[in-house]
Amino acid sequence: MLAPLLNVLRRTALDALVLVPGANFRRVFGQDFHQMERPLAVIVPRQGEPVAVVPQLEMGSFSPLGFPGHVFSWRDETGYMGAFLAAGEALPGLRDGARIGVEGQRMRVFDLFALQKAFPGAGFVDIHAEISAIRLVKTPQEIALQREAIRISEAALEATLAEIRVGMTETEIESILLRNLFSHGADGLAFAPIVAAGDNAAKPHAHARPDYRIKPGDALLFDFGGSHQGYSADITRTFFVKEVSEHDRAFYETVLAANARGREISRAGITASDVDDAVQKVLEQSQFAAFCRHKTGHGLGLDVHEAPQIMRGNMQVLEPGMVFTIEPGLYREGEAGVRIEDDVVVTETGIECLTSFPRGLRLVG
Amino acid sequence: MLAPLLNVLRRTALDALVLVPGANFRRVFGQDFHQMERPLAVIVPRQGEPVAVVPQLEMGSFSPLGFPGHVFSWRDETGYMGAFLAAGEALPGLRDGARIGVEGQRMRVFDLFALQKAFPGAGFVDIHAEISAIRLVKTPQEIALQREAIRISEAALEATLAEIRVGMTETEIESILLRNLFSHGADGLAFAPIVAAGDNAAKPHAHARPDYRIKPGDALLFDFGGSHQGYSADITRTFFVKEVSEHDRAFYETVLAANARGREISRAGITASDVDDAVQKVLEQSQFAAFCRHKTGHGLGLDVHEAPQIMRGNMQVLEPGMVFTIEPGLYREGEAGVRIEDDVVVTETGIECLTSFPRGLRLVG
Repeated sequence: MLAPLLNVLRRTALDALVLVPGANFRRVFGQDFHQMERPLAVIVPRQGEPVAVVPQLEMGSFSPLGFPGHVFSWRDETGYMGAFLAAGEALPGLRDGARIGVEGQRMRVFDLFALQKAFPGAGFVDIHAEISAIRLVKTPQEIALQREAIRISEAALEATLAEIRVGMTETEIESILLRNLFSHGADGLAFAPIVAAGDNAAKPHAHARPDYRIKPGDALLFDFGGSHQGYSADITRTFFVKEVSEHDRAFYETVLAANARGREISRAGITASDVDDAVQKVLEQSQFAAFCRHKTGHGLGLDVHEAPQIMRGNMQVLEPGMVFTIEPGLYREGEAGVRIEDDVVVTETGIECLTSFPRGLRLVG
Repeated sequence: MLAPLLNVLRRTALDALVLVPGANFRRVFGQDFHQMERPLAVIVPRQGEPVAVVPQLEMGSFSPLGFPGHVFSWRDETGYMGAFLAAGEALPGLRDGARIGVEGQRMRVFDLFALQKAFPGAGFVDIHAEISAIRLVKTPQEIALQREAIRISEAALEATLAEIRVGMTETEIESILLRNLFSHGADGLAFAPIVAAGDNAAKPHAHARPDYRIKPGDALLFDFGGSHQGYSADITRTFFVKEVSEHDRAFYETVLAANARGREISRAGITASDVDDAVQKVLEQSQFAAFCRHKTGHGLGLDVHEAPQIMRGNMQVLEPGMVFTIEPGLYREGEAGVRIEDDVVVTETGIECLTSFPRGLRLVG
């Protein structure tokens, strides 16, 4: 169960690492825990027995995981610090000069402060990327779950388009999308969906507005995903309401060409940087070069944004089983934005595109 | 806009505080941001102009907030460290010996490490509770949003009960609940719902099982909430499938008496500890004293678990406008669990119970 983590420790030459609930935790232990006001941490030393600090309230869920080490549980009445200190005493090798790796993008500061008190001589290092690398290559079972999340999400989008009418607000449309996601079987949301029209679509991370009603000629962008057993879809499609100007059509087709280029070039053996470079060049060599705003994509799995970042400069070599998004976009501030996002898995011979929602320019409403 | 934060700085005698996206950020700026791989932080010094570090990608959403200070934005290609270092140079008063407060339960370790590099002589202090205290007393607008989240959630629960049949799995029932939440107008989930039957209901934070089918005599516990514009419901009701033993009925009535005691005693001027003490005594003085597992409740607002913790030892005095849960439970490991949770707001004369779903023992399926 802990073998992948021990490999991380060997590669990084650290003395221990700490996992907190989240995607890495779920991949290792098969289950996740709410991260609220009660800290839960698993400390894995390079040598010796691991220990865990677990809220008493969660022991009923933690015990069945078969954690191969000692568990220090704590109760609300007495607080968590005693359990952390006991964990420190149980791992005397991690005192002075020890170097301990943590998940910097996941662990919260109050966890770190408790660990620093428990291991006062140790130094803490952010090895989020190195730990998360245990999830870079997906298993066939993981890909099957992602397929199901995508199937649900695409069906929900199709059902949503059928309900859209001119004059609806962005939040009304968001509400229809949410209803359709769950009526098609999603068991959660990958992230709070983005439903943005007109000038709002020009914000890459827009929030739906309750007071904006879609009107003919508007771009209407959906960036969303349902989840299924912890795995997520992440899909973007941009439509136009009733009609589209020639300028917007050319704008759309440019993004679509960049998306197609990304799907065409991606394969094992090239780098994430190569993919982004090829996609960005389509945008940069177009008449809309001034409207580029972001990289091509990101890995997708138990975390919605994870490695590999599909970004110039990321020399990560693509391997079969890696899953990532290809989501070029162009954004004319104050006017319109277009993004077209697919989820792909690297295969032995190229990629398979997991998303299949049609990409051709489509009018809705 | 920053006045509440400056008050926190005066009270804590710190030199600055840092906000990251989350509930406090939303309360201050009226909007939230996704917390993924791109750090966003607002640094408010006790004296002088505040600064913000913002991903370029979010500037379209950040600019309209009217942040009254300098913004250092950063791009994916160059990374965030340069913007943090520039923020450090813009606040020379925060160098050697400065003490900077952070939201320990919200800020992640990679944010902290970036701040530590930007302010190498400063010390960082967890003042999560002190900052979050700006949200302790809700405005009438906030309470109205909570009411709507609760109305949606209770309607969804009633609709779900009508669909339940003996032999359904926990995950099937969870899926029905999710569908009903969004078809009744939720715009998000307060948290991943708990739907647990039989022995699984005895785990306070259970996960729905795909392979357990509900059968006559099972307890069936729902702990869930839809959200509405960032505000959440948090409701628990426990039903029995088809039939209930006399033992389970007494078990249920004990929890209900504790819940009623909590609603009866809560009022402005007493402490959170007083409420928990009164509720726990009902459980502890019953024949089921051995099955207590947790405190009475927690504050509820933009965070689903926030202050005031309704827990013995918490000497926080209740004030009008505070919103919290009353959720006593009893858990017979391997057999059954019962929890009954209401959301209440403290008024001038006592409390108002925002949740109104009937509490009497009810058979379903």
